[in-house]
Amino acid sequence: MVEVVMAPCSPVECETAVVIDVLRATSTIVTALSNGASGVIPVKTIEEALEKRKEGVLICGERNAQRPEGFDLGNSPLEYRKEKISGKTIVLTTTNGTQVIEKIRSEETVAASFLNLSAVVEYLKNKESIVLVCAGTNGRFSLEDFLLAGAIVKRLKRDDLEDGAQVAKRYFESVKNKKEEVKRHSSHAKRLISLGFEDDVEFCTTEDLFKTVPVLVNGVFIPKESL
Amino acid sequence: MVEVVMAPCSPVECETAVVIDVLRATSTIVTALSNGASGVIPVKTIEEALEKRKEGVLICGERNAQRPEGFDLGNSPLEYRKEKISGKTIVLTTTNGTQVIEKIRSEETVAASFLNLSAVVEYLKNKESIVLVCAGTNGRFSLEDFLLAGAIVKRLKRDDLEDGAQVAKRYFESVKNKKEEVKRHSSHAKRLISLGFEDDVEFCTTEDLFKTVPVLVNGVFIPKESL
Repeated sequence: MVEVVMAPCSPVECETAVVIDVLRATSTIVTALSNGASGVIPVKTIEEALEKRKEGVLICGERNAQRPEGFDLGNSPLEYRKEKISGKTIVLTTTNGTQVIEKIRSEETVAASFLNLSAVVEYLKNKESIVLVCAGTNGRFSLEDFLLAGAIVKRLKRDDLEDGAQVAKRYFESVKNKKEEVKRHSSHAKRLISLGFEDDVEFCTTEDLFKTVPVLVNGVFIPKESL
Repeated sequence: MVEVVMAPCSPVECETAVVIDVLRATSTIVTALSNGASGVIPVKTIEEALEKRKEGVLICGERNAQRPEGFDLGNSPLEYRKEKISGKTIVLTTTNGTQVIEKIRSEETVAASFLNLSAVVEYLKNKESIVLVCAGTNGRFSLEDFLLAGAIVKRLKRDDLEDGAQVAKRYFESVKNKKEEVKRHSSHAKRLISLGFEDDVEFCTTEDLFKTVPVLVNGVFIPKESL
């Protein structure tokens, strides 16, 4: 069974959950782990993040797309360069992506972005029951999350698709130019571009820059190479 | 602005809300008012429905797709024939459709189904801000609701589409045979067919049998002819 849910209200129970927040939380998690961070701890509030400050830990994230006061890094994946984060633990709090993670009740949880699309598809190949959990934007539909979900469903080539997976696959198939679709029609992308984050939108819609699949273990995303 | 939301968690604030539950609540509301019912009162619980019993009122709806004990009619639109309901007030409680209505905080609320598609599109022509509120199935994606939303968005021919509206339009455009898509891929349709309600699925995916637009006034859907 493969399903796609958008900004779910209630707990999502499944075997394998794939959390998707293309702009920008899961793109940042994938980039951080690919560039040598030892782990990413998603937390819900700014207070929780600040409480975790100690040696070797970077406090990161955004509210209203901007880095909160006292934080080391924002939520732009382009900030997460090797020289800044190698060997460090990242504590991350964001408006949508890290909030949706606490709705997930799964045996395993991984993080997906366009940046690690092929690696995620490979990882999912032998899984029985998969739910792609799109973070959405403030509880509403996110076009870019649904597009990535559709790309994953398409590549899994399975017949046991639930409603959301079927719709996401058809939507993905209908899009000729992924970057163009996101830049022109995603309200979140348009907002980020207006705030000066056009490079982030460009980066986050690029496929297969990394082979890392972030896997959540005891509340920490750690890197797994699946390709 | 035109947006589509699926099984929303939080209140939906807008000018014009269009509630969609193709299988079967809004199809039933449209059919009842088209066949002469004087009004349809959506209520959340079976108890609320039964408390409203008095002369000239029919208590109607479903739980697990079946008519609850003590109810006059179930949730099959095919039951709502002229001779049974003409001049009567219908009190309706269903699992998804009547639940989502209480999330809506709009200046006006109308009910849409394939049965009154053209009438709804005509009604919406001069509205500024429209949110199509899909009921979904137990909080999850409903393919048939999203397909109707896409059909409405497509016909509105507007440029100011939010993410959900853009995706719904593209999904609708990708579907060649609507009835086939719903029967083959909607989990709710498949469940209804397995329970013996295939005629309902056939009926609820038929376009433009009626010209009635149900408009919610003081908690009661009353009929408005827009064509």
